[in-house]
Amino acid sequence: MQVQLKNIEVEKSKTTKINEVDFDNLAFGSVYSDHMLVCDYKNGAWETPKIMPYQPIILDPAAKIFHYGQSIFEGMKAYKDTDGKPWLFRPLDNHKRLNISAKRMAIPEIPEETFIEGLTTLLHLEKDWIPTTPGSSLYIRPFVMASGIGFHASPADEYKFIICCAPSGAYFSGKVSVLIEEQYSRSANGGVGYAKAGGNYAGQFYPTQLAIKKGYNQVIWTDDNTHEYIEEAGAMNIFIRINDTLITGPTSDRILDGITRKSILEIAEDEGIKTEVRKISVTEVVTAAKSGKLKEMFGAGTAAVVSPIAAFGYKGVDYDLPELNDDYASLLKKRITDIQYNRTEDKFGWRFKV
Amino acid sequence: MQVQLKNIEVEKSKTTKINEVDFDNLAFGSVYSDHMLVCDYKNGAWETPKIMPYQPIILDPAAKIFHYGQSIFEGMKAYKDTDGKPWLFRPLDNHKRLNISAKRMAIPEIPEETFIEGLTTLLHLEKDWIPTTPGSSLYIRPFVMASGIGFHASPADEYKFIICCAPSGAYFSGKVSVLIEEQYSRSANGGVGYAKAGGNYAGQFYPTQLAIKKGYNQVIWTDDNTHEYIEEAGAMNIFIRINDTLITGPTSDRILDGITRKSILEIAEDEGIKTEVRKISVTEVVTAAKSGKLKEMFGAGTAAVVSPIAAFGYKGVDYDLPELNDDYASLLKKRITDIQYNRTEDKFGWRFKV
Ligand SMILES: Cc1ncc(COP(=O)(O)O)c(C=O)c1O
Ligand SMILES: Cc1ncc(COP(=O)(O)O)c(C=O)c1O
Repeated sequence: MQVQLKNIEVEKSKTTKINEVDFDNLAFGSVYSDHMLVCDYKNGAWETPKIMPYQPIILDPAAKIFHYGQSIFEGMKAYKDTDGKPWLFRPLDNHKRLNISAKRMAIPEIPEETFIEGLTTLLHLEKDWIPTTPGSSLYIRPFVMASGIGFHASPADEYKFIICCAPSGAYFSGKVSVLIEEQYSRSANGGVGYAKAGGNYAGQFYPTQLAIKKGYNQVIWTDDNTHEYIEEAGAMNIFIRINDTLITGPTSDRILDGITRKSILEIAEDEGIKTEVRKISVTEVVTAAKSGKLKEMFGAGTAAVVSPIAAFGYKGVDYDLPELNDDYASLLKKRITDIQYNRTEDKFGWRFKV
Repeated sequence: MQVQLKNIEVEKSKTTKINEVDFDNLAFGSVYSDHMLVCDYKNGAWETPKIMPYQPIILDPAAKIFHYGQSIFEGMKAYKDTDGKPWLFRPLDNHKRLNISAKRMAIPEIPEETFIEGLTTLLHLEKDWIPTTPGSSLYIRPFVMASGIGFHASPADEYKFIICCAPSGAYFSGKVSVLIEEQYSRSANGGVGYAKAGGNYAGQFYPTQLAIKKGYNQVIWTDDNTHEYIEEAGAMNIFIRINDTLITGPTSDRILDGITRKSILEIAEDEGIKTEVRKISVTEVVTAAKSGKLKEMFGAGTAAVVSPIAAFGYKGVDYDLPELNDDYASLLKKRITDIQYNRTEDKFGWRFKV
């Protein structure tokens, strides 16, 4: 079936896989919905986006994505409220960030209407795929990759912008313990750390595997020059509570400007929690842990939502975080998810009707 | 046609594209030979490699290569001598480096026999594709990428190791002028700069485009912390001649350990040229340029061979290099290519019969 919806061509799938999915036991990002959006960049312009049945991508072996890692992505979620209505959270910010990443990776920018119309049209089609089990949502993965060919190390002349959807449960299962990294690094000054560029993630796999072997779930990255300042985690920005002050590092060209991070900062201020955005050293965190002033650490990101950290390791020593009854993480998580799932008034104007 | 050659399955192409190729006017890496090698990693092991007609690769949209840039590659050349015999140059070193890259990028290592037998079997089939026009060769691109799927940022469970061949002319056309970078960086301490990881290259595209707009061909990267030390160029290590001493920076976790670089160092020593492997600051280079002591700069790499640099820019000032009659670059280029093309005795044992 070939229908023209606004500026998007839609070819509906003749079958559905939805009955094969156990929506009560979803892993993270491992099953995919029936449709995807594909938009090609050719001859200097983005063509008309097409929504089509989820299907393999066919590329020349010389496509630059395979050789030079020229790719960027976003991570978003669609949430369903108790009336069955789907919602997005600050999607225009994802679009803006995708284009910030695009610029740094020499990828042509995606027009706002292509992104937003493409996304909402796809979600209209896939709304039955948004899970309703508590803590689950439809994870949305927009990405752009170099499909143009050549072994010359230079930007491609063709790209594919694709959106896929994956009904997903929690990113972490159980308590999260982290290793503060002393040797490896995620990003360089003047590098691509602030971009959601594919290569930033593969570079983290090996050090993260080493940390997992030692019994941790995640690495907390530190600056590559001194390893003395806390930067961020694999897919989360990091918040640290010392006494009653909530601290997070400033964004920079090494750190992803997380949408959850900036939302949490606004909610915390709204709650009257004292916040500080400043460099925070490992020494300060360790000293606070030793004196009992370190009350909480948590990660914040679309996939991980607000993920409390139960313990951290540094220089061979493990430090446990206390278990509090009035922790900020639970409060902030409730407030942000209440907005996301349309369980409360949206005083910040973040919710976006699909 | 399905034949079993050693441990490699070979399916020969029924047609050839070789008559469509203008071997006297080859660009770099933009036409591809008739066959390619593909080897899949599944269920924890590399399967039997297959040589097959050059053909598109089919991947799930959730393949991790698209999202997390998990890929590595090598760059090699096959050279044809005047008797029509094909040669490789230090291919075991490329295999070793591929596995160094693999480890850092959490990719399973490629067995030596898969690499060497796969490569030589492919080259036997493609030997008519090795060009003989002076300065041209068959550029060989082995690469490995994550074909396994998932939106969880963790290593894939399936990979493809592929070798493609591209008859190629010179990497640079004309004189090369470079910009010494003051703002952007290629790699971090503790990062992946020493690996031939895809993402390292895409990260260079934007700063390189900015340099090209200013009239340069290439960026010379400096350390990300101070931008005071010369590191390397996009696809070449850098040599600097001050008076009669040839200097190149030490390799580190930020710099690719180039096979051309180490060969040039050995040849230079063999020629009685004084060499130094040490950190070299931009200040030293600029001071030497001003006082007339800076005699030469050149890049060294498989693709670029030995590429003399005619001028460099730094902080808005351009510095021209002198034109010498007895330059090291020409001498060293002649010596290394004489070995590569089997025009001379191979006293170092670098040539490898296909
Ligand atoms: C490296 C990194 N940091 C932080 C975040 C959190 O950003 P956001 O809250 O926009 O999802 C992510 C995930 O998107 C990430 O990949
Ligand atoms: C970043 C970088 N540096 C240096 C080199 C030169 O290395 P080799 O001489 O082994 O080709 C290359 C090319 O392979 C490269 O990509």
